[in-house]
Amino acid sequence: MQIPHWDKKDLIGIENLSRSEIRKILLLAKEYKKNIGIQNNHLKGKRIVNLFMEPSTRTRIAFEVAAKSLQADVISIAEKSSSLTKGETLRDTALNVQALGADAIVLRHSSPGSPLFLSRIVNVPIINAGDGAHEHPSQALLDVFTLEERIGSLKDKKVTILGDILFSRVARSNFWALSKMGAHVTFAGPSTLVPKRFESMGAKVSHNLKESLSDADAVMLLRIQHERQSSSHFPSLAEYTRIFGLNKSRSKWLKKGAIILHPGPINRGVEIDSELADSKNSVILNQVTNGVAIRMAILSLCTLSCKK
Amino acid sequence: MQIPHWDKKDLIGIENLSRSEIRKILLLAKEYKKNIGIQNNHLKGKRIVNLFMEPSTRTRIAFEVAAKSLQADVISIAEKSSSLTKGETLRDTALNVQALGADAIVLRHSSPGSPLFLSRIVNVPIINAGDGAHEHPSQALLDVFTLEERIGSLKDKKVTILGDILFSRVARSNFWALSKMGAHVTFAGPSTLVPKRFESMGAKVSHNLKESLSDADAVMLLRIQHERQSSSHFPSLAEYTRIFGLNKSRSKWLKKGAIILHPGPINRGVEIDSELADSKNSVILNQVTNGVAIRMAILSLCTLSCKK
Amino acid sequence: MQIPHWDKKDLIGIENLSRSEIRKILLLAKEYKKNIGIQNNHLKGKRIVNLFMEPSTRTRIAFEVAAKSLQADVISIAEKSSSLTKGETLRDTALNVQALGADAIVLRHSSPGSPLFLSRIVNVPIINAGDGAHEHPSQALLDVFTLEERIGSLKDKKVTILGDILFSRVARSNFWALSKMGAHVTFAGPSTLVPKRFESMGAKVSHNLKESLSDADAVMLLRIQHERQSSSHFPSLAEYTRIFGLNKSRSKWLKKGAIILHPGPINRGVEIDSELADSKNSVILNQVTNGVAIRMAILSLCTLSCKK
Repeated sequence: MQIPHWDKKDLIGIENLSRSEIRKILLLAKEYKKNIGIQNNHLKGKRIVNLFMEPSTRTRIAFEVAAKSLQADVISIAEKSSSLTKGETLRDTALNVQALGADAIVLRHSSPGSPLFLSRIVNVPIINAGDGAHEHPSQALLDVFTLEERIGSLKDKKVTILGDILFSRVARSNFWALSKMGAHVTFAGPSTLVPKRFESMGAKVSHNLKESLSDADAVMLLRIQHERQSSSHFPSLAEYTRIFGLNKSRSKWLKKGAIILHPGPINRGVEIDSELADSKNSVILNQVTNGVAIRMAILSLCTLSCKK
Repeated sequence: MQIPHWDKKDLIGIENLSRSEIRKILLLAKEYKKNIGIQNNHLKGKRIVNLFMEPSTRTRIAFEVAAKSLQADVISIAEKSSSLTKGETLRDTALNVQALGADAIVLRHSSPGSPLFLSRIVNVPIINAGDGAHEHPSQALLDVFTLEERIGSLKDKKVTILGDILFSRVARSNFWALSKMGAHVTFAGPSTLVPKRFESMGAKVSHNLKESLSDADAVMLLRIQHERQSSSHFPSLAEYTRIFGLNKSRSKWLKKGAIILHPGPINRGVEIDSELADSKNSVILNQVTNGVAIRMAILSLCTLSCKK
Repeated sequence: MQIPHWDKKDLIGIENLSRSEIRKILLLAKEYKKNIGIQNNHLKGKRIVNLFMEPSTRTRIAFEVAAKSLQADVISIAEKSSSLTKGETLRDTALNVQALGADAIVLRHSSPGSPLFLSRIVNVPIINAGDGAHEHPSQALLDVFTLEERIGSLKDKKVTILGDILFSRVARSNFWALSKMGAHVTFAGPSTLVPKRFESMGAKVSHNLKESLSDADAVMLLRIQHERQSSSHFPSLAEYTRIFGLNKSRSKWLKKGAIILHPGPINRGVEIDSELADSKNSVILNQVTNGVAIRMAILSLCTLSCKK
């Protein structure tokens, strides 16, 4: 198994990746998935630092599993326990992590742009594991991987992303990834969460659930944040569910065989009913499994192939 | 060194283990203890997930040490830091952990029955590391291991379990383990913590400390929970100690050579005096050491031998 | 690469190390730094327990990186998450950690003397990672290592330690390390933080910044604790900075080529200005890098060479 040539030091977002770069990551992930039982030592002796300045278990664990599957040493630095960061600038924290001998830094941060900022400061790869409302590239890559696994080429396929689009890095990264692979993206949800101005990106915007589902080859649900309930973006969770929640009867609006995705954790009975979440068209758990392979590919490419 | 055949996927409790299954675990643990300095790679490339939904350091670390001694990768998910579990059902959390590629899940949960529940949902082994007041099988196995190491066969031996029996998973699991190995168990303590109805399990119940100690080959103390002090189960810690605390003078009620066990952490001066905790009849630290070997055996058997 | 003979079980402090023992650690660290890319398995199969009873990310991570670089298994027990320590004496915690099979214990504790105390209780090495205001030996060793790397032999060199000396274990350990290597140490800062009585150790004491900087070959800044602001040791952070903060204009008081050290994390604009922290005379990040090599040397020597 060969790690292909790769000439970007960092993975900041999907927006600045070419289609062929995305393809390279997907192909390597496919190799890793195929060989999942076979041990490899691609990152043996390498130190991957998980620098998570915002709480996250799901993404952090997936990167940890991926790194350990490549036999890397994993060092986790989580926001709360971190006196490393007490009164210290993010720049100094990153320089310290580099000085400790990190071979790559996986960064989760609440500020959009922080991975780009750090990528210019340190020499080791910065892998964006989610930066505020900006991008979440590994999520979009695993989503594309999972979609292709089920419906083949995304060329001219229609994907509806439904829910809390406004502040969603997942929606943004997926828009770039899906568009670059030739798919057409519709953002759907209440107008407060899906403003018309998203059309300027090149997406379709719909505030009508039935319309947005009717010709979709796949629908990607986003998690509704409970915290939002008190905000002014929508009156109540119950009202959101009543109008935009995906349930059995509304699933008839979908084309036969349309795929259902969700980045997790799912709120059963809020954005999606259990019957649909557990149906054969749901690929929610496949996304989780594929997320490990995608992160193995990302870690290998950035850590091994970049020109330091 | 050969891992014997094992045909149970999960380790839920002692109640549903046969005597020969218990013996198999004990024998394998003995092998691991004997070879403690020699490296093995029995679980190399396997991913053990410690899913601890209730705080615990002691048991979690013992499982971590055991898994690492078998060269497994260990992923720890602890309740507090876990956004994995935010608004997510336990079922979904377990399915996600399985989808991440876990080869076994070690579960600590406050709800009795949760390991059994999950064992029917996921295909990978569920190892119960304590579920509410139900069972704590690895603790009972290490206790039996430690007792046999000191006093040989438990056939017709008498073991008194002293203290807060009412809500104790350790007492329950030990009752099953000791009984199956042929020992006779007495539950002792104040009547509020040791109700008569425990006799229906087949145990003797005693509210008289002297009586309960006099013919015991071993006495197993349980930790008195400080939190209980404010409840109505007993008036005060001091009163408990005055009537049921084990101290030097009361130790004369014990047979010569009777063994003292405690699952830790001990409250010196509450349920046991320092002089006894540190005496040559105390096997408290042997329990800790043997706990690693027992957990190595459990992890090997469940992860390697089960029919997935 | 050969691990030299070493006959101290523990590393408690610099005060009780001889100059030749310090030299042995520095030389081994130099070897490790030189071979940083080459994998070694010096501690393969060994279990290093990081027992941190006081919050610390920086030192804990450095020991973790060091231990993993030697292929040891690392078990981290951090104060807050630790039910191990609930109602348990430090002695019992250490005995339990030893019983779990630890091959060395790295201890951070708020009480001066706790590593010495534990070293007499357990048979495995205790490595002091900071005990209250007493010592922080690995920090002093990495400081000496970094200084020698830049300015060669410390014989008759002058080092000024500036700031919050009163409760600083870094200042204490560095005083011993620097003195034993032949350097002359000045403690400088406001009289409330640098009492005259430090002269009895053999150090010079100065309350005049200009004077303390003028003949120094190196100046080691200590972190000003924000928490101190409310205490009576100095009126305000701003006042400290105004009188003792190191900035561009005051750096002219330094000899050309004088080295600037800081144990981190730095408060930019408080004890040091950004321009100086990032200048070519600053070795702050070198200290971090060298800290890994020093801890590799300490872990190897204590774990492998001691007579257990």
